[in-house]
Amino acid sequence: MSLFVTFEGPEGAGKSTQIRRLASELEARGYSVVATREPGGTAIGEAIRQILLAPEHSAMLPETEALLNTAARAQHVAEVIQPALAAGKIVLCDRFVDSTLVYQGAGRGLPTSDLLALQRFATRGLWPDLTLLLDLPVEVGQARRRASGEPLSRFDADALGFHERVRTGFLALARDDPARWRIIDAAQSEEAVAREVLAVVLERLPPAPGRQ
Amino acid sequence: MSLFVTFEGPEGAGKSTQIRRLASELEARGYSVVATREPGGTAIGEAIRQILLAPEHSAMLPETEALLNTAARAQHVAEVIQPALAAGKIVLCDRFVDSTLVYQGAGRGLPTSDLLALQRFATRGLWPDLTLLLDLPVEVGQARRRASGEPLSRFDADALGFHERVRTGFLALARDDPARWRIIDAAQSEEAVAREVLAVVLERLPPAPGRQ
Repeated sequence: MSLFVTFEGPEGAGKSTQIRRLASELEARGYSVVATREPGGTAIGEAIRQILLAPEHSAMLPETEALLNTAARAQHVAEVIQPALAAGKIVLCDRFVDSTLVYQGAGRGLPTSDLLALQRFATRGLWPDLTLLLDLPVEVGQARRRASGEPLSRFDADALGFHERVRTGFLALARDDPARWRIIDAAQSEEAVAREVLAVVLERLPPAPGRQ
Repeated sequence: MSLFVTFEGPEGAGKSTQIRRLASELEARGYSVVATREPGGTAIGEAIRQILLAPEHSAMLPETEALLNTAARAQHVAEVIQPALAAGKIVLCDRFVDSTLVYQGAGRGLPTSDLLALQRFATRGLWPDLTLLLDLPVEVGQARRRASGEPLSRFDADALGFHERVRTGFLALARDDPARWRIIDAAQSEEAVAREVLAVVLERLPPAPGRQ
C-alpha cells in the first residue's frame, strides 16, 4: 500500500532529521520507503533549487519564486513521487504544495487561488495523503538555524513578520483540513517528536509485509 | 509614447537579426529602444534559460518547461519591460507569452486555458501591443539552424511533427487576433523582411521626438 506523506514547517523545525529517522523506523519494520525533498529531488529540480536559494537573487519576485518552486515540483512528481507511489512505496517528502501556498501566499501576499491553480497544473492533481506540520515559534526556529552552522539562504534574510505570517499560514491550512494534517510540537526533544511522527504515520498503515 | 512589440516564430526565422536591425533604424529616427529576449533578459532569467536549453535535461516535462519559461518572464516583465515602458520607451522582445502558448500548448499538448492563466499570473496582465510573426516553412527554418553553426539546443532535437504543430499554432493565434498580430513572410531576403518590419512598427508610432 502506498502512502504519500509530506512534512511542512519552518527551517529549523527538524524536518530533514525527522524524515531520516522515520524512514529508518519504517524500513526496519519492512516497509519500502522513498525519502525526498523540495525544491529538488531531480537533476532539473536541484538546478532550480540553486537559483531559488542564491543570496544574489534578492530581486526575485514572489511570482518567480512560486513558478520556480512549482516547476521543480512538476518534475519531482513525474520522475520520483508518482513512480514510487505506483510501486506501492511510502513517500516521505520534505515540503510540497503547502510550502508554496504558505511562503508565497501568506508570506509574500500572492492570491491563494492563483497558487492553488498552479499546484493542480504542476502535480496533475496528486495531493498528499498525510501532512505533518512541525510547528515551532519563529524565534526558536531562527535560533536553531543560526546555531546549526548551515549556510544561510535568501529566506533567512526575510523579516520576522514574514516568518510569523508563514507560521500562521501553515496553522490555518492545518486547521482547515484536519483529515489530512497533523500538527506536531517541534519544540519538544528530537526523540519526543520522532515518537509522535512515527505513531501518526503507523496509524495510517496496514501491518508491514515484512514485519517479523 | 511607449510601445511593446514582441517577435514570434521558429528558430531560424531571423528574429534576433531583425530586432537588431529594427532597433538601429528606430534609434536613428530618435526613438528610445530597449531590445531584449526570452527566456532571459535578467540574471535570474539567464540562469533559468541555461536549465531550459541544456541538452541533458531531455526528461523535462511540458509542465516544467511552461513553468520555467513563465518564471523567467515574470522576472523579465518586472525588472526590464515594465520599467522601460513606464519610461516611454519602445520595447522589442524576442519571444513572449505566445511562445509558451504555442510551444507548450500546440507543440506539447498542454491546455491553452491553463497556459493563459499562467501568463496572466506572471505578467500581472501586461500584454504586447503588437506581435510580429516571422513565419517560415519548418524545413527552411531547420536548414537555416543547421547552417548557422550555432550550438543546438534541446528543442532542435524535437521531431518534425512538433515543429509543424508550432507553426500551425502561431498562425492560428495570429489569425484569431489580427489587431495585435502581423504575419511576415520570413522566407524573403533579410532586407525585404527588415523593410516590412520597420514599416509595420512605424505605422504604430507617432513621429519621433528627435526626428531631424
